[in-house]
Amino acid sequence: MDKNIEGLTVTKEENFSEWYQQLILKSELADYSSVSGCIIFRPTSFAIWEMLRDKIDKKLKKIGVKNVYFPMFIPESLLTREKEHVEGFTPEVAWVTQTGNTKLEEKLAVRPTSEAIMYDSYSKWIRSWRDLPLKYNQWNNVVRWEFKNPVPFFRTREFLWNEGHTVFATEKEAKAERDVILGIYSSFLKDYMALPHLIGYKTKLETFAGAVSSCSCELYLPNGKAIQGPIFHYDGQKFAKAYDIKFLNKDEKMEYTWQNTWAISTRMLGVMFAMHSDNKGLVLPPKLAPIQIVIVPILFDNTKDKVLAKANEIKENLSKEFSAIVDEREEYSPGWKFNEWELKGVPIRLEFGPRDLESNQVVLVRRDKGEKQNVKIADLKDIIVGELNEMQQDLYDKAKKMLENNIKEIDNWEDFTKNIKDKKIALIPFCGEGGCEEEIKDKTTGAKSLNRPLDQPDMKDKKCARCGKPAAYMCYFGKSY
Amino acid sequence: MDKNIEGLTVTKEENFSEWYQQLILKSELADYSSVSGCIIFRPTSFAIWEMLRDKIDKKLKKIGVKNVYFPMFIPESLLTREKEHVEGFTPEVAWVTQTGNTKLEEKLAVRPTSEAIMYDSYSKWIRSWRDLPLKYNQWNNVVRWEFKNPVPFFRTREFLWNEGHTVFATEKEAKAERDVILGIYSSFLKDYMALPHLIGYKTKLETFAGAVSSCSCELYLPNGKAIQGPIFHYDGQKFAKAYDIKFLNKDEKMEYTWQNTWAISTRMLGVMFAMHSDNKGLVLPPKLAPIQIVIVPILFDNTKDKVLAKANEIKENLSKEFSAIVDEREEYSPGWKFNEWELKGVPIRLEFGPRDLESNQVVLVRRDKGEKQNVKIADLKDIIVGELNEMQQDLYDKAKKMLENNIKEIDNWEDFTKNIKDKKIALIPFCGEGGCEEEIKDKTTGAKSLNRPLDQPDMKDKKCARCGKPAAYMCYFGKSY
Repeated sequence: MDKNIEGLTVTKEENFSEWYQQLILKSELADYSSVSGCIIFRPTSFAIWEMLRDKIDKKLKKIGVKNVYFPMFIPESLLTREKEHVEGFTPEVAWVTQTGNTKLEEKLAVRPTSEAIMYDSYSKWIRSWRDLPLKYNQWNNVVRWEFKNPVPFFRTREFLWNEGHTVFATEKEAKAERDVILGIYSSFLKDYMALPHLIGYKTKLETFAGAVSSCSCELYLPNGKAIQGPIFHYDGQKFAKAYDIKFLNKDEKMEYTWQNTWAISTRMLGVMFAMHSDNKGLVLPPKLAPIQIVIVPILFDNTKDKVLAKANEIKENLSKEFSAIVDEREEYSPGWKFNEWELKGVPIRLEFGPRDLESNQVVLVRRDKGEKQNVKIADLKDIIVGELNEMQQDLYDKAKKMLENNIKEIDNWEDFTKNIKDKKIALIPFCGEGGCEEEIKDKTTGAKSLNRPLDQPDMKDKKCARCGKPAAYMCYFGKSY
Repeated sequence: MDKNIEGLTVTKEENFSEWYQQLILKSELADYSSVSGCIIFRPTSFAIWEMLRDKIDKKLKKIGVKNVYFPMFIPESLLTREKEHVEGFTPEVAWVTQTGNTKLEEKLAVRPTSEAIMYDSYSKWIRSWRDLPLKYNQWNNVVRWEFKNPVPFFRTREFLWNEGHTVFATEKEAKAERDVILGIYSSFLKDYMALPHLIGYKTKLETFAGAVSSCSCELYLPNGKAIQGPIFHYDGQKFAKAYDIKFLNKDEKMEYTWQNTWAISTRMLGVMFAMHSDNKGLVLPPKLAPIQIVIVPILFDNTKDKVLAKANEIKENLSKEFSAIVDEREEYSPGWKFNEWELKGVPIRLEFGPRDLESNQVVLVRRDKGEKQNVKIADLKDIIVGELNEMQQDLYDKAKKMLENNIKEIDNWEDFTKNIKDKKIALIPFCGEGGCEEEIKDKTTGAKSLNRPLDQPDMKDKKCARCGKPAAYMCYFGKSY
């Protein structure tokens, strides 16, 4: 009766890219759609996105951020008002040109981001210092029609994110928001997603189109590629000037406002899936597992009712603190179920048969370790709390070790190219010039700057590892998504 | 120092439409955007939408519904697969025809609803009875480029909603979902939004494009117009046949699935705002008020610190159970603040000055009644619980009375046209024919069928109020959005 369970047929080590695609599809996290480059978020991945959204949203609300919703269409004339900004996006914009059978007079961009449409309203709403700070945020869908190879979660043409757009009366207040917002993102990455990361400023070349500076969290994947995570852009008065956002300050003088933009996207889900999963399938940090415990009863005709009743009693008891289910299906064997729940990444499996019933115990298996341990039912709750906490920590520690092992501090071009070829992240003294960075890209088939650490050493006497001119700061480089 | 507070300059009774627009703009619920027909949800209205979403979502999850996210684009070839369905939507579809500077080979519809793209995947995912029921839902944005006059919340070209798309192995199970889903929607309308409504089936003419039957909640607005609220469509096997959704049943035979679709949208916010608000501004049912209590301290130089300290102590104490704020701004007078918070619909205002401090009391004013009452601080919590409950109930009772007073049961054409002219909802015996319904529309400049009550009397000997042929059922008609 069992339908075949299709496990992963390649390993993470031999072919990461194929392994990742199989993982996403076979664990039923996502599926491809009939729109090229756009994926379907199936229940497990969407439930995790909802947890991310709700946890972060709660923290944002605590610091006074309010949610709003702006139209997803942006008239062309509005989008093009800030030059750099629009140039950053135009090649990737999806345009609505027609409704029904009628051609539109002005075409409408499907938002690649909402600066243009939001700041148009900000300029109407903001009149005086009393209206500031204004801290608005949206959780929505955006479209960037990239032509690079799409990869589920990492790079999709439509994705989900939050976009915070805050406005302040002073430069100082605007700048002070950086640590607050990156603190919220960073602690979510660490404490929930078990993802270590590097925080720092983007180079001039990689700064967001229209921003003064961009500060990012950069992550490292098991395939040796870096990937950009959540980001904070300090916009200074650039958008304020382009969209005419002015206010009467306390001295009764008109002044342009100071702004920030910040975001975290569904890309992070992919990083988390890729980082922790193994060759049996999905591994999820317990805090973000939609199902934390699955009880698989071992059913024989003569003891079935008793075993099921007790299994459900155990589940009820656990459900006060954890998300737990009993897999009661009779059309699948226990072994088949073990494989399925491993593939789908449930952190803890409890096996429970007639003999366990007699001896008042269960067999507990942790997804990341795979070892069986007998646990007395009376101790079960405490043991599970301990195992889940430990698993959460273990996943983080393992990922952190991998990140640290793959960062090399380097000061010369020869070592740089060698380490980039070895899929390392190189921390080098860098001049900061766009031209030099372009050259690095060319000569390494694509190594990009990631960011420069907030804490910098004394740079006196340090030379750029590429061009040999005086270095401005230490900067991470690597192959990157 | 006070900037002018702009109150409403027309009354609800003399010019509902102008009053409603002023209400929406001046209470800062929404604003117009540079995209014609699309509005901006400002913090208050979006916070209410989040409450609606979270409350309903929780109930949906309890009955096993899972959230997913599908791409918002639908290739033209996919959209056109179910004939009736696509014909219902094509005149209103926004089309992406271009990305960057490149023309797309196949144009992409911005989803007006997601049947087409979801059912394409359902046909891949559903294989056997083991995969059923499948109950998926999305909270997302959709676009219908209507050319009727847009009205904030009531009719906007982009709006937010949930769309549930459920699949069952049997007709019976599919049909049984109606009362569960409409129960969830209906109790939210009643218990939270304080909105009475009429539940019943749409006529053949008004049934959703592609559905077998549509069951709606219809509401009545103070301007004498009806408006359709949440809806449940029973699709039978129509979409299953168009999108090839089949499963192997327990007898090992291939069979088409049975499906439903159901939705509630941001339109409901508009109905709630319009229903309860008055000529001073917004009135919100307390359960959905983002701020339930505002404390306005009366500040004089010599007692300011004491009054503010106590006001904040009161707030802290109330904040465990309610959402409360202290309006500490010194640049506005208390009177100005009273007006502002009335305009913005905070259900309870507490005035608190030096004399109140001395006598350990506050002055409590309920938004809907406007009468002042002195309340001892020790009794405050209990009094507030009582007042908020009473206000919630009062708003519902008032709206219910209005609805009931405006329904007229009628059996002849003369009375029908008279009552429609009088902005009543007419309950008439109706033959159910599309042609007859079109005629009714024509002869009354637009009276539409709303729905037919689930409980029907014996129709023997009853004649259609328009055509005189035998009547099939009693049906509500009215002018409608």
